[in-house]
Amino acid sequence: MAESINLAVSTVIFALRPHPDTQHPVLWLPLVRRVRSPHKGLWALPGGPLGSTEDLAASARRNLHETTQLTPRYLEQLYAFGRPDRSDDRTVSIVYWALVHADVASAGVESDNVRWFLADELPKLAFDHSQIVEYALWRLRNKMEYSRIAAALLGETFTLSELREVHEVVLERTLDPANFRRQIESTGQVVATEQFRTGGRHRPARLYRHDHSIELADNGPLTGR
Amino acid sequence: MAESINLAVSTVIFALRPHPDTQHPVLWLPLVRRVRSPHKGLWALPGGPLGSTEDLAASARRNLHETTQLTPRYLEQLYAFGRPDRSDDRTVSIVYWALVHADVASAGVESDNVRWFLADELPKLAFDHSQIVEYALWRLRNKMEYSRIAAALLGETFTLSELREVHEVVLERTLDPANFRRQIESTGQVVATEQFRTGGRHRPARLYRHDHSIELADNGPLTGR
Repeated sequence: MAESINLAVSTVIFALRPHPDTQHPVLWLPLVRRVRSPHKGLWALPGGPLGSTEDLAASARRNLHETTQLTPRYLEQLYAFGRPDRSDDRTVSIVYWALVHADVASAGVESDNVRWFLADELPKLAFDHSQIVEYALWRLRNKMEYSRIAAALLGETFTLSELREVHEVVLERTLDPANFRRQIESTGQVVATEQFRTGGRHRPARLYRHDHSIELADNGPLTGR
Repeated sequence: MAESINLAVSTVIFALRPHPDTQHPVLWLPLVRRVRSPHKGLWALPGGPLGSTEDLAASARRNLHETTQLTPRYLEQLYAFGRPDRSDDRTVSIVYWALVHADVASAGVESDNVRWFLADELPKLAFDHSQIVEYALWRLRNKMEYSRIAAALLGETFTLSELREVHEVVLERTLDPANFRRQIESTGQVVATEQFRTGGRHRPARLYRHDHSIELADNGPLTGR
């Protein structure tokens, strides 16, 4: 029975990059143009068949690297999509989602068939990939509220304003700076460094880093796998 | 590459039933004895190959029904397990977890090759199924804290004591009855009925039901699929 079912691994990759008009950071994701049928010419999530001796997460990392030349700061299994009607050949896709750091992402290679898109201005995607992206955005917003994965979208060190900005972009609402600072400081998850961000119109802002002894997200018995 | 990979769907099924010694409700799950190699004779999660035109959740429901003759009160995708070394043939298992109602579960059919076990006194399981059960228990405990899936382990109506007991069993800690009542009433997720549980040594206790307009758990864009 199972012989005719294909198994693929795809990855939804998010990065923060400036909006081309406003220059404010917004969520972007890279897509790959399909070069063969079905859905030839449409944009799709990077992915492909699982290697016969390959771990699922390793396959997601490989896809991500082949598409963007990047290594993820955060990678987590999202969901397995398996509706019989989701493609003409029967394919079950195990989807991962990943966060990469913006500066690095900016240096990622684009080509005719690989391009970064604004997460809220996506073209029509192949298969059920629009629904998959929608679910990945939902998961990202939920995780942001109870874990520290915002760090995965930033560099090694960051100011509290930068950290607040990540939360604002993902949660799609503004946050009070003083409340945010109090909340972050009370968690003890960020560590003040002795470095400062200087330059620009503002006074020097202290740089923070995340406490590396804490996992970016708590996935219980699967944490760190 | 992908041709040699098998795809299976398995289900971790939880129910509350009395402990044989203490008669207090505890978590049980049904297992199936393997009747062929590999791991012949060991107990395993119910499951099998995905049907070529079958939806993933439908496959989990089918396995569940074939094993226990039950329909789940709650069913959710848990995780896809795909380490290359998890079985001798290369098999990726997409695992669901389900909650069934205790009274019904008690009437479930047992046989030489299907048996219910205490969740914290499991025998050695086939493949990586021990790890899968451990992760399912972790997910259950986490969901219990922020959603209403406790309802899926109870009947249509229940007393607040019964609801608290479910939380205590799953979370493995005692809860203060007055605080629990206040917390549950403040969420507005349970609705008082005009019925009472009578009999026994205690005074009649009001029966509650869950607000059916609220999903048992919030899975965002995938809720209700």
